[in-house]
Amino acid sequence: MERKKAKNFFHALQREQPAVNILAGRNAVVEALKAGRGMNRVYLAEGMRPSDSAELVELAKERGVPYVFCPREKLDALSRGLRHQGVAAEAAPVDYVSVEDILARAEEKGEAPFLLLLDELEDPHNLGALLRTADATGVHGVLIPKRRSVPLNGTVAKTSAGAVEYVPVARIGNVRQTIDALKEKGIWVFGADMDGAQEYDEADFTGPMLLVVGNEGHGMTRLVKEACDVVVRLPMAGKLQSLNASVAGSILLYEAFRQRRKK
Amino acid sequence: MERKKAKNFFHALQREQPAVNILAGRNAVVEALKAGRGMNRVYLAEGMRPSDSAELVELAKERGVPYVFCPREKLDALSRGLRHQGVAAEAAPVDYVSVEDILARAEEKGEAPFLLLLDELEDPHNLGALLRTADATGVHGVLIPKRRSVPLNGTVAKTSAGAVEYVPVARIGNVRQTIDALKEKGIWVFGADMDGAQEYDEADFTGPMLLVVGNEGHGMTRLVKEACDVVVRLPMAGKLQSLNASVAGSILLYEAFRQRRKK
Repeated sequence: MERKKAKNFFHALQREQPAVNILAGRNAVVEALKAGRGMNRVYLAEGMRPSDSAELVELAKERGVPYVFCPREKLDALSRGLRHQGVAAEAAPVDYVSVEDILARAEEKGEAPFLLLLDELEDPHNLGALLRTADATGVHGVLIPKRRSVPLNGTVAKTSAGAVEYVPVARIGNVRQTIDALKEKGIWVFGADMDGAQEYDEADFTGPMLLVVGNEGHGMTRLVKEACDVVVRLPMAGKLQSLNASVAGSILLYEAFRQRRKK
Repeated sequence: MERKKAKNFFHALQREQPAVNILAGRNAVVEALKAGRGMNRVYLAEGMRPSDSAELVELAKERGVPYVFCPREKLDALSRGLRHQGVAAEAAPVDYVSVEDILARAEEKGEAPFLLLLDELEDPHNLGALLRTADATGVHGVLIPKRRSVPLNGTVAKTSAGAVEYVPVARIGNVRQTIDALKEKGIWVFGADMDGAQEYDEADFTGPMLLVVGNEGHGMTRLVKEACDVVVRLPMAGKLQSLNASVAGSILLYEAFRQRRKK
């Protein structure tokens, strides 16, 4: 967990948020990738010669950073006047870790793994609030997919009230494969859904666990839901069918925390 | 609870939120006040002759709507080109009710009163999320102070995902007096604060109760905190000292709901 520069960067973000840190130009992006800096995405100009893009694509793959080819106009807009030479990247406010780092953290503490996976969460305010609750409840790390999910950015850092500095976040490729791999390690997977089979306070959250919270609108994807060992629901006494995603996730994290403390 | 037009108005807000509904001109404001329409604030031009303002001030007081004298430029900006004649008002997406209405609602249902008071909450997203949780947990009504608190507006309506239609909201003048009056009716007052004396899951939330949640930054005011029968805390295992206000409030509402269902 290489986080030396993270603190300063976070404070810079607080001053002029919700700006996102953009790296422009081939060298800046190559060096950042080589240094293993936390990056959300690499942007390459459409029509770039393969001989020009090959090294960048190779490096991005190696570091697990998503990359995309896009029109030059998009690169111009991202770079806001900086010379980009057809290459730009969006940096994260802190470095991402690996799922293995998160599991190692639980082991170091001598605790049963307590992980949170956010499946296609879109709103940075929800991610920020959930990082805050994750810090408060002793979650060892948060998993977010590389695709169709809000990454760590300036708004998330601000809304997290600093939790982004303390809660390790890993980006994952295939969500279903990650869940299956964790299940093989003996981790119990709980999904949250309003039509879950079990009420949230009747589930046993005291062992090694992963909690999955879905998208604000459509919840967990079907594939992910099917992979869960148990789907829990929050009882609802009113007219509406769902809660705010960060609220629902936080209530479940606190119920797990409550059970784990009593144990 | 006069809510005939509320539904249409809410849908209009969803289309062009976060606009706030502004009434401009003496007649529009007088008629809305007379009709008892939900209003957040009346704006009067500074330097208006007392003979011109007297009726409006009288009506606003009678209806419990806050009013303020302000520069004409502010009225111009609020009215966006509409002729205001020195008088404008901000309407709420639904009508406010009284604290008595809320208590009557609990009695009708044959339930011990379950109330939520938001003391100087500032962020409309937090108010919206809390209204959503209040609906889900069977809260009979929400109390918000007229001063230094976000009122019901378009952003709140949108963030509440419709809960603003179902959860009665009362605006109160003096918070301390309201709390004292509720205590005299046998309602137990719980405050939420990170230095509370009792852990949240050890408190007994099964009787008639009011939960008080404070401001996002400074929490409850001292006077309000002192008026609470019990101040409960959420345990925090991490580096941060607090949670998002709507998250903290929602966790407490769900704990109360959990206890009340089991009873």
